[in-house]
Amino acid sequence: MDIETSPLARPFPDMPPIAGVTLRIAKARYKNWDRCDLTYAELAEGTALAGVFTRNLCCSTEVEMGREQVKLGRARALVVNAGNSNAFTGYRGREAVEQIMAQVAAHLDCQPSDVLVSSTGVIGVPLPKDKARDGVAAALAAGPCSWEDAANTIGTTDTFAKGATASAMIGDTRVTLNGIIKGSGMIAPDMATMLGYIFTDAAVEPAFLQKCLSAANEQTYSCITVDSDTSTSDTVLAFATGKAGNAPMSGFDDPGADAFMAALHDVCRQLAHLVVRDGEGASKFIAISVTGAVDDASARRIGLAIANSPLVKTAIAGGDANWGRVVMAVGKAGEPADRDKLSIAFGGIWAARNGLPLPDYDETPVARHLAGQDVDITVDIGLGEGKATVWTCDLTHGYISINADYRS
Amino acid sequence: MDIETSPLARPFPDMPPIAGVTLRIAKARYKNWDRCDLTYAELAEGTALAGVFTRNLCCSTEVEMGREQVKLGRARALVVNAGNSNAFTGYRGREAVEQIMAQVAAHLDCQPSDVLVSSTGVIGVPLPKDKARDGVAAALAAGPCSWEDAANTIGTTDTFAKGATASAMIGDTRVTLNGIIKGSGMIAPDMATMLGYIFTDAAVEPAFLQKCLSAANEQTYSCITVDSDTSTSDTVLAFATGKAGNAPMSGFDDPGADAFMAALHDVCRQLAHLVVRDGEGASKFIAISVTGAVDDASARRIGLAIANSPLVKTAIAGGDANWGRVVMAVGKAGEPADRDKLSIAFGGIWAARNGLPLPDYDETPVARHLAGQDVDITVDIGLGEGKATVWTCDLTHGYISINADYRS
Repeated sequence: MDIETSPLARPFPDMPPIAGVTLRIAKARYKNWDRCDLTYAELAEGTALAGVFTRNLCCSTEVEMGREQVKLGRARALVVNAGNSNAFTGYRGREAVEQIMAQVAAHLDCQPSDVLVSSTGVIGVPLPKDKARDGVAAALAAGPCSWEDAANTIGTTDTFAKGATASAMIGDTRVTLNGIIKGSGMIAPDMATMLGYIFTDAAVEPAFLQKCLSAANEQTYSCITVDSDTSTSDTVLAFATGKAGNAPMSGFDDPGADAFMAALHDVCRQLAHLVVRDGEGASKFIAISVTGAVDDASARRIGLAIANSPLVKTAIAGGDANWGRVVMAVGKAGEPADRDKLSIAFGGIWAARNGLPLPDYDETPVARHLAGQDVDITVDIGLGEGKATVWTCDLTHGYISINADYRS
Repeated sequence: MDIETSPLARPFPDMPPIAGVTLRIAKARYKNWDRCDLTYAELAEGTALAGVFTRNLCCSTEVEMGREQVKLGRARALVVNAGNSNAFTGYRGREAVEQIMAQVAAHLDCQPSDVLVSSTGVIGVPLPKDKARDGVAAALAAGPCSWEDAANTIGTTDTFAKGATASAMIGDTRVTLNGIIKGSGMIAPDMATMLGYIFTDAAVEPAFLQKCLSAANEQTYSCITVDSDTSTSDTVLAFATGKAGNAPMSGFDDPGADAFMAALHDVCRQLAHLVVRDGEGASKFIAISVTGAVDDASARRIGLAIANSPLVKTAIAGGDANWGRVVMAVGKAGEPADRDKLSIAFGGIWAARNGLPLPDYDETPVARHLAGQDVDITVDIGLGEGKATVWTCDLTHGYISINADYRS
C-alpha cells in the first residue's frame, strides 16, 4: 500500500549539533526492507535522563525497563528499533532487549542500565536477536549521521521526518534543545507507537529534568490524539549532556530554569503537533480550546472527549460546523458541565452561547474557516477558570483505507 | 444521500397485539418530508412505567422530564417526535414538550405527567409548537396502526424497522412483551439517538418493573456501542398495562417473576442487537466476550474498550485477526490486567495464550471466520471470575461516507 505524504506535513528544520550527542544509523532488516531501521545515539558521560511512558497496562518490555532506568537518572546511549515493537513477546522479548543493552555497554564500558532501548512496529513477534546483534554492530561501526537521518530511521510508516529545535539562555550560556519523534501513525497496521527523543547540551540534574519533562508532557503529548487508541510502547525521553557548560540547574529558582522550561515546552509542543500532522488519513489540523471548566484537568478531559469523538472528527472532515456534536461530546465526557451555560465557537465565531444557538449566527465565515487546513474550536463551559488546549486531526476515508483495506 | 438497507438487517417479526396498548401515527412534518414522524401510544389506566436514560450531561428536556415521570411510576400515553431532537434548545424546547403533555392529558382526562415525550433528530432547533400541536391532533384522530408502522415512524435514518417480541408464563397466565427501537444511527448527521419502547400486558408494580428494566439494561443496551458517542437523548421506556390478568408482580420471589425477567431480558437483547445491526456503515456484527476479569463491571469496561477501539474495528472490517490491537485495547481500558496472563481467540480459536502468541497458531480457520458477517472475539484476562459480553459493529468507509461526505 502506497502512503502519500500527509497534506499537513512540515519541512524538516535546520537542527544544529548538540555537544555530547552522536547519532548513527544502520540496517538491522527487522522487516523485509532495504532501509535503515536501527538508530543509535551515543551520549557523553554524565548525561542526565528523564522519561515519560505509555499508561497502557499491556506495555512492552522496553517501557517496563525504561521506567526503571529513568529512576537512575543517567544514560550513555539510546537504541531505537523500527519495524518490530517487541510488545507482548514475554521472556524472549526481554532477552533481546537485555542483549542489546549488554552489547552497547561492553562497547562503551558502561552499565547495561545506562543503555535505553525503544522498539516500534508489529506486536507479538519477539525482536530477532541475531538481527539486533548485527544491526547494533553495524551502527557502532558507522559514521555519524544527521538529525534528519535519525528522524527518518526511527519512523515506521510515518509519511515525513519530524524534528524540532529551540534554544534558551542560561545566564550567559546559550543551550540548545533538539527533538525528533515518530508516529502517532498506526499508519500501517500494527504500527502504533509514538516515540520521541529530546537532546540538549544543557546541564540539568536528572530530577529537575524529569520535572520539566513531566510538566511539558501534560500540556503537549498528553493533549494530542489521533484515534483514541493508546499504544503499548509510547515513550518520550529527554537527554541532557551538560556540554554547554552552564551552571547545572536543579530547580525552577535556578537562573535560566524558566527559559529552559519554556524551550523544552516549545520543542515538545512542536513535536506533538507534528505527530498530529501525520495522523492517519489526516486532512485537517484541529485545535480545541476549552475554557471555563471547573479546573484544568477537567478542561483537558472535555477537550479529549471532543477530540476523540468520531462524529466531531467526521463533521470537521466534511467541513460541517456541527456544534450539536460538540454539545454531545461535552456531555459524554463525564466532567461537570451545564447545558445551559455552554458556548461553542468555530474559528472564533460563536455559534451558540449560554446553551442556545445564536439567532444571528452566520455560517458563511465559519464554512470558510472549516474549508482551510487549520480548524479552531472553542468551547466555554461557563463554570470556572479551568482551561486546556488539545490537538487532533479529522477522521477521513484515509484512516479506513490505512487500517482496514489492508491485510497485515 | 441514499442510504442502503444494512447488510445485517433482520426482517420485522410477527408481533401480537398487547392488551391495553393502542398505537397511532401521524405526519407532523418536523422536516421537509412526506412521511409519518409522530408516534402516539395510548396506554390503559394504571399502566406501570419504568425507564433508563442517557448519562450524557447535556441531555434533552425530554430526558430530564422523563426521569421525573419515571419516579411517579405510571403512564397513560407516549408521544415520539422524529426529525428534531429538541436538545440544546433551552426554555423554548421545554415549552413545546409541556404543550404536547397538556394536549394529550386534556384528551385522555389524565395528568400531564402521565404523558411521556421523546424526540430524536437535529440538535439545537426548538421543536416547532405549531407542527407538534397539529401532529398530535392528527394522531389522536387517526385509526390504530401496526407495530411495524410505529417502528418505522420512530426511526430517523434507520435503514430498517426494528422490533422484538417474547412471552412468559406467570402462573397460568401467558404475558406478552413487545419492543420497538430506533438508532443507534447517526446514519445522517445530527441524528444520534437510541429510543426504545417495551410494552407488556403483564401486571407489574412500577418499582419492580424498574428493577427488571435496569437489570436488563446493564447487560443489553449498556453493552452495545457503534462509535463510542453517547447521545443527548437516549431513552428506553417499559410500559406494563396489567391487562393480561396475572397476579401483580412486585419482586423476584413472586410466581413467574423469573420468567418475566427472562422474557424482558430477551426482548432487550434482541432490540440492542438490532441497533448494532443498523450501526452506521456496519458490515459485520461483532460479539466480544471477556472472561477472567476481576469482576463483571471490569469485564464490561474492558469489552467496551475493545469495542470502541477504531483500530480493532477497522481490523475486523478488513478481515484481519489483528490480536495485537486487542492487546492494546485491553491495556488502555485502565482496568486490572496482566499482559502475561492474557489470552485472545477469534471464532473460538486461540491466537495467544498467557501472554504469548501460540507457536502452532493456524490463521486459516480464523480468516474464514472473519470473512463471515458474525465475528466472535474472546478475551480471557486470567485474573478472576468477572465476565461480560458486549456487541459492536465494524468501522468502514460507510461510516465516513455517512458522517463526513455530507453537509448538514
